[in-house]
Amino acid sequence: MSYDQIRLDKHEGIALLTLYRPERMNAFTGEMMAEIIAALDDCDADDGVRAVIFTGHGEKAYCAGADLGAGAATFDYDKHGDGSDSPVAADGTIDWSHPLVRDGGGRVSMRIFEAKKPVLGAINGAAVGIGATMTLSMDARLASDTARYGFVFARRGIVPEAASSWFLPRLVGIQTAVDWCYSGRLIPAAEAHEKGLVQSVHAPGELIDAAIAKAREYTADSAPVSVALTRHMMWRMLGAPHPMSAHRWDSRVIFSRGRSADAAEGVTSFLEKRPPNFTASVASDYPSFAEFEDAPPYG
Amino acid sequence: MSYDQIRLDKHEGIALLTLYRPERMNAFTGEMMAEIIAALDDCDADDGVRAVIFTGHGEKAYCAGADLGAGAATFDYDKHGDGSDSPVAADGTIDWSHPLVRDGGGRVSMRIFEAKKPVLGAINGAAVGIGATMTLSMDARLASDTARYGFVFARRGIVPEAASSWFLPRLVGIQTAVDWCYSGRLIPAAEAHEKGLVQSVHAPGELIDAAIAKAREYTADSAPVSVALTRHMMWRMLGAPHPMSAHRWDSRVIFSRGRSADAAEGVTSFLEKRPPNFTASVASDYPSFAEFEDAPPYG
Amino acid sequence: MSYDQIRLDKHEGIALLTLYRPERMNAFTGEMMAEIIAALDDCDADDGVRAVIFTGHGEKAYCAGADLGAGAATFDYDKHGDGSDSPVAADGTIDWSHPLVRDGGGRVSMRIFEAKKPVLGAINGAAVGIGATMTLSMDARLASDTARYGFVFARRGIVPEAASSWFLPRLVGIQTAVDWCYSGRLIPAAEAHEKGLVQSVHAPGELIDAAIAKAREYTADSAPVSVALTRHMMWRMLGAPHPMSAHRWDSRVIFSRGRSADAAEGVTSFLEKRPPNFTASVASDYPSFAEFEDAPPYG
Repeated sequence: MSYDQIRLDKHEGIALLTLYRPERMNAFTGEMMAEIIAALDDCDADDGVRAVIFTGHGEKAYCAGADLGAGAATFDYDKHGDGSDSPVAADGTIDWSHPLVRDGGGRVSMRIFEAKKPVLGAINGAAVGIGATMTLSMDARLASDTARYGFVFARRGIVPEAASSWFLPRLVGIQTAVDWCYSGRLIPAAEAHEKGLVQSVHAPGELIDAAIAKAREYTADSAPVSVALTRHMMWRMLGAPHPMSAHRWDSRVIFSRGRSADAAEGVTSFLEKRPPNFTASVASDYPSFAEFEDAPPYG
Repeated sequence: MSYDQIRLDKHEGIALLTLYRPERMNAFTGEMMAEIIAALDDCDADDGVRAVIFTGHGEKAYCAGADLGAGAATFDYDKHGDGSDSPVAADGTIDWSHPLVRDGGGRVSMRIFEAKKPVLGAINGAAVGIGATMTLSMDARLASDTARYGFVFARRGIVPEAASSWFLPRLVGIQTAVDWCYSGRLIPAAEAHEKGLVQSVHAPGELIDAAIAKAREYTADSAPVSVALTRHMMWRMLGAPHPMSAHRWDSRVIFSRGRSADAAEGVTSFLEKRPPNFTASVASDYPSFAEFEDAPPYG
Repeated sequence: MSYDQIRLDKHEGIALLTLYRPERMNAFTGEMMAEIIAALDDCDADDGVRAVIFTGHGEKAYCAGADLGAGAATFDYDKHGDGSDSPVAADGTIDWSHPLVRDGGGRVSMRIFEAKKPVLGAINGAAVGIGATMTLSMDARLASDTARYGFVFARRGIVPEAASSWFLPRLVGIQTAVDWCYSGRLIPAAEAHEKGLVQSVHAPGELIDAAIAKAREYTADSAPVSVALTRHMMWRMLGAPHPMSAHRWDSRVIFSRGRSADAAEGVTSFLEKRPPNFTASVASDYPSFAEFEDAPPYG
């Protein structure tokens, strides 16, 4: 597949996904959404990719937000179709199940949420609107010291999207989340780091290397299927009402993976004091979650 | 409406709600509860109010907790009625649906939880018992450097109330929440700030001005309906099991608000580099949540 | 009851539970699991115990993780039985309800989750694998400055267990939780403290005294039944979707405990400026939760 608004470069186990609209500060579009989703599908299916790093082209912006080229109609998604098929009936009622209603930023956030590889953000400049919220379901956010976050939705007359009302308070706490979203002010990288949104801050010229080093740390000695399962368990359990959900889930996963060749290799390599050589494939050996999710609680 | 145990002063878009029982360190009563709820109803219905700031009268206390004037019977709510109508039957069984059972502090916390305007606390002194827990569903807590928090319930033979078992661990983490509640010790403003409960600490003489400045930051360039929706989405999603709840909810809200005059004004004013002039009214244009909450997930 | 792999010493209201396998760095076994659960059952039933402190024997390790004596078969729990009764059928399908499937580390975590006394960890050295995850449902973790945490599961080809996918992100945030679990690197006590996992760090020789001092702070002036209820409410509400769950629950608990002799004593002793003398017994006066948990919401 070829991409127009992003670049996807795979090198030594890491996929670098670059938002690429040089003339528009990498502003977000429906086409960019589709390309990001396709790229993540590609990476999940490719055992040669162990981690994905998002960044933006250039030094100015990671992603400046929704492309405002449509002016006042930017967020009037009913006007984004060709007019032949509208969610809005003549009497003003809205067909909520119409595809145009679905938030495109949220489709990206939810796709990242489902990723089977660690996803890191190398936030190289302004991350505004969807440029900010699309990073919240990533596993780690590293920022250049010139980066700025902007949750500007209330200043545009809309609301935070991309499921950020779920993700942001879990990352920085509710007091900080509403502080940033009510005011809509720009948040410097240092404040984003202090509040826990950003994992580390770097000089612009060192950002990508830092993200690559972190991705290597996540993958060097770890079994790929273990990392994928850990990712799904942690993110799902982040919202689960009761720890029994985790106990019943990980009982089954531990039993299942404990019988695998990866578990034997993990212990053996440790006892032999040598690096492990894991062989299970995310693409072909990944278990179905269905058998875990419907487990009854332990009495 | 006139108030006896609080003061409500509206000035330039901000309502200052002062707990006002000078002789009792602003101790909490059933009457104070009713007045706080009435004042918040008033503020939500008044488009002239953009934010609400709670504080306490005087320099000593924000609120010293439940009024202990009834002595040993203070928390025996069965004795707070006139005796003609008790939740407790002759055989000792309790009618849990009886109105006297319902926690009055929780009615305040839940009313703040539902507020359509940002609610800030200017914690000017001792905040003990319900004086501490009533502040937990506020958006921001600013404290004077002489303020003290006290989650003293276990020292009084009761338990944390006002839904604080839900709010406090989300604000400061479970390790700190139980630390404060098991011991019941007084928490200085500096520690409350370090642990994330308090947003900022100020000299007593500068506290109210700081709270007003923060309230202005939340409202100056933000659409009132956007802020109200953001508030409700963030606080509800703070407990939601899965981000899909947010995705389906904000898809509908984004589509709905994206078609509004506020969204057009938000983009236009930004492109024209001028302050926005939002016109939608919280009192009359606020959408019903029913149409969002029952949305099915996206497959 | 006598214990082989742990020591249980009760002294002046505090039970010290020491993981005790000197020759194996206190590595975890099924027998140790059973002894820990029995010891907690004992402590909950004994009103003479006000708090429980976990630690490990010696200076090197709190608990080095699962005993790896079975080598490559360590995590193949199907091989831990005598072979006569296996969860795995001849065709490879797994009987998920078989007792061998259930994660033993999770049984410990969930038993601690249900404890009626504050549970503290005095982490005196390496806490790796189940040695790390079993500490996550404790109320407080104090560490020696030589302690190290290791969430090494992905390096062993398995996944985080003991319900840690639920507990760990709530203690340190999701960004840090996945950082630690993907890499599997050892986390120094200082980093564990900075990220909120560890409450305080101490010189090795001062660790136990610090834990005892903290346990006394939790129990000195607090009613035992109040502490037990606070513990259960906070931990349960940590995952509850909506604060109304807390409001309806604590309404009933406040009404119930507000009528108790402990509540009268709590207020009276405060007004008389003397230490309280609480008399309600956790062993015999602890309320059933059933009557709280099924409460309908307040309209």
